[in-house]
Amino acid sequence: MGFEISTTREFAAAHALRLYDGSLEPVHGHNWRVRATVASPGLDSIGVVMDFHELERLVRHIINPFHNRHLNDVPPFAEGSMNPSAENVAYYIGRQLALKLPAGVTLTRVEVWETSANRAAYVP
Amino acid sequence: MGFEISTTREFAAAHALRLYDGSLEPVHGHNWRVRATVASPGLDSIGVVMDFHELERLVRHIINPFHNRHLNDVPPFAEGSMNPSAENVAYYIGRQLALKLPAGVTLTRVEVWETSANRAAYVP
Amino acid sequence: MGFEISTTREFAAAHALRLYDGSLEPVHGHNWRVRATVASPGLDSIGVVMDFHELERLVRHIINPFHNRHLNDVPPFAEGSMNPSAENVAYYIGRQLALKLPAGVTLTRVEVWETSANRAAYVP
Repeated sequence: MGFEISTTREFAAAHALRLYDGSLEPVHGHNWRVRATVASPGLDSIGVVMDFHELERLVRHIINPFHNRHLNDVPPFAEGSMNPSAENVAYYIGRQLALKLPAGVTLTRVEVWETSANRAAYVP
Repeated sequence: MGFEISTTREFAAAHALRLYDGSLEPVHGHNWRVRATVASPGLDSIGVVMDFHELERLVRHIINPFHNRHLNDVPPFAEGSMNPSAENVAYYIGRQLALKLPAGVTLTRVEVWETSANRAAYVP
Repeated sequence: MGFEISTTREFAAAHALRLYDGSLEPVHGHNWRVRATVASPGLDSIGVVMDFHELERLVRHIINPFHNRHLNDVPPFAEGSMNPSAENVAYYIGRQLALKLPAGVTLTRVEVWETSANRAAYVP
């Protein structure tokens, strides 16, 4: 039993995946949509998991460096060792966000949509 | 292994949370969106979890008293002991709905959106 | 811990359920929306669960026979032993899709919306 809250934010960015044969996809872009979900077993003294605005602020802080950029040029993707796939974008956001959550609140899931049809999720 | 069905309904209502310092948020409103999900391990004789229309009817019956009201004035929030947060709205709807489900059908989750970006969920 | 990817596709089809008393619902139609979710515990050599386009192709292959048809006339619903409920549509798609997934990738969930408000899901 428990409670979750989720917030959804967007950023616009280009990316190009390194494919199985070592070649690079053509550079293309998406309006990436990010939904972060956090949970707690109970509610705090005012009846919430945590402040929605604080969760929004934390997510925005993590994704702001991606907005209007080419992901292949931005950490943690710039070194080339981590492909800027939707899965890795979700993973990176999730790992960063988990470090900033209040005590008693845990990361449940980060979902990243490349398009309205295609979503990846990192589930810690 | 199992099956779920979900129905989504909306209501429009004002609310104001009692904050950590005892002060009250400014009264504001949302078009609240509620998605209730119920589950069963298998399907019944006609191949469904339960009738969608019956689930809709149950949810509508629970949320109708909130529509076009100030949640702080409506039970169970009127006494002031339970803040009308999205988390508590989800919890209240879930607890009421669980009492009315057919045999073999259990509540899985109630999600409540305050805005298109921000969602709370009660997971029994 | 793990990763998921989901793809969403639509098809337009009529259906009519056989009801508890043996009578048949009036024939009616929906723009059915299907979201298939698959998972893997880690990512492959290029940082993905599997290729989004390949998942789209697999789902499209399964649902294409339903598009612009009366589901009651199409296998596996044509024999009349399996009602074309949203639950059974999700189940059928899920069972077919699970057979075609790459090694290490498993089916997590198939969701089927009959309307924007009403969704069924098969969870293997």
